[in-house]
Amino acid sequence: MAQNQTAPDPKNVIEVPIRVRYCECDPMNVAHHSSYAVWLEIARTDMLRRDGTSYARLEEAGTYFVVARLSIRYRKPARYDDDLTVRCWIDTCSGAKLDHAYEIKRGKDLIATAETTLVCVNKHGNIQPIPSGAVS
Amino acid sequence: MAQNQTAPDPKNVIEVPIRVRYCECDPMNVAHHSSYAVWLEIARTDMLRRDGTSYARLEEAGTYFVVARLSIRYRKPARYDDDLTVRCWIDTCSGAKLDHAYEIKRGKDLIATAETTLVCVNKHGNIQPIPSGAVS
Amino acid sequence: MAQNQTAPDPKNVIEVPIRVRYCECDPMNVAHHSSYAVWLEIARTDMLRRDGTSYARLEEAGTYFVVARLSIRYRKPARYDDDLTVRCWIDTCSGAKLDHAYEIKRGKDLIATAETTLVCVNKHGNIQPIPSGAVS
Amino acid sequence: MAQNQTAPDPKNVIEVPIRVRYCECDPMNVAHHSSYAVWLEIARTDMLRRDGTSYARLEEAGTYFVVARLSIRYRKPARYDDDLTVRCWIDTCSGAKLDHAYEIKRGKDLIATAETTLVCVNKHGNIQPIPSGAVS
Repeated sequence: MAQNQTAPDPKNVIEVPIRVRYCECDPMNVAHHSSYAVWLEIARTDMLRRDGTSYARLEEAGTYFVVARLSIRYRKPARYDDDLTVRCWIDTCSGAKLDHAYEIKRGKDLIATAETTLVCVNKHGNIQPIPSGAVS
Repeated sequence: MAQNQTAPDPKNVIEVPIRVRYCECDPMNVAHHSSYAVWLEIARTDMLRRDGTSYARLEEAGTYFVVARLSIRYRKPARYDDDLTVRCWIDTCSGAKLDHAYEIKRGKDLIATAETTLVCVNKHGNIQPIPSGAVS
Repeated sequence: MAQNQTAPDPKNVIEVPIRVRYCECDPMNVAHHSSYAVWLEIARTDMLRRDGTSYARLEEAGTYFVVARLSIRYRKPARYDDDLTVRCWIDTCSGAKLDHAYEIKRGKDLIATAETTLVCVNKHGNIQPIPSGAVS
Repeated sequence: MAQNQTAPDPKNVIEVPIRVRYCECDPMNVAHHSSYAVWLEIARTDMLRRDGTSYARLEEAGTYFVVARLSIRYRKPARYDDDLTVRCWIDTCSGAKLDHAYEIKRGKDLIATAETTLVCVNKHGNIQPIPSGAVS
């Protein structure tokens, strides 16, 4: 998350609870860094679900989002059984691109910040504009 | 593996090397038990590949195998960076069912034994006889 | 689950909701069979949590449970976004061994049945009797 | 990878083969984006192994590296059974920080580029300078 990024409007932020699974932790006794990518995905697909659609239905309609960019900054370790909150919001959406920003928190502690860029494609993998209504 | 199981003909056994990945290990500093299921799958799909076909091509031809049963006995822990060998062979094959047996070893140490039953289905998920040539 | 197994007392059964994650699904568009092992683990550790203890605290006290046996029968496929329920109960507990049984359901549909055997070990990996109070 | 980054000296680049596992692929029939983080980790730990040390031994000696930053750009999809090559090199190393850069290729096709920052910590999680000899 860029330093000068303005805070998102709270009503556009989704908060998803994640409890760290045992199998997500590694021998250092912390959540493996690859698990965070999974949690981010859960948050942004829950955002679609809240909006009355769901990724499963988008796929049936021939609209897919592929991850084009993933960036995570790990600030504090997360441990087994931790109750985390993933906060997710849409940063920008234009044409075929959809940028999300994320914070992962444990209570007030900031565990990680992240950003992703999704690109909208059809079932052949060709880039297409995001259909109106797919993302509110 | 049943106690009274006879040893398979060595020429029908495939041996696949697996090096334990860091992310496959848990806070007890051993490979998480769910990782073994992945290693077994790698071994049995390598068996198909050795036979001149591959699972990717079977799927293109409308032949799928779904796992109907998985059974693993864990005998000794496997650790990060361990060089393991998965030994895999076909136990029985009849109609739509395909039974594999497995040993996972680290040198001479037996780490685990396992069995799976696959069922052959078409792309609609309906059970179909295993096509001749799909499994030798 | 053995055919002649009697139904468990409902008050000893824990039910844990699981929503199938996108990354848990494979190209056949169903949950990968290795994911089930993870869901079973979540259910049995939630059982410990419900009992006022938790696996994290057991580990701190030098009590570990290792999986010695895993057996799963897959009956119907589970798909992305499915809301599943994992039902888990203790089948037998004696000495150092703890047997759990499981049902995974989607509504009334039985998706899978499973059994695991855990063995209690100390931090050196040596088998020890299950401490009284660790499992109720 | 920044546009103006100069190519690394080939003798400092490690190349690690990765074959895409079935369970790493998702319903879009491509490798899930979280799998790439695992492949990068395999490449950079193989780099340590090539240098005559290994991450397992570093951990025994009380030296740990934690991932502080992960950035991946996904350029083309990778599919089940693809034979990929992960190219990895050290971009900068100073004090407690170690920056790696990566390319993931399938033959000549560039599948992804990535960067990570590791931070050296002791077993209490406190930042410490990278011990001389740990990274060549």
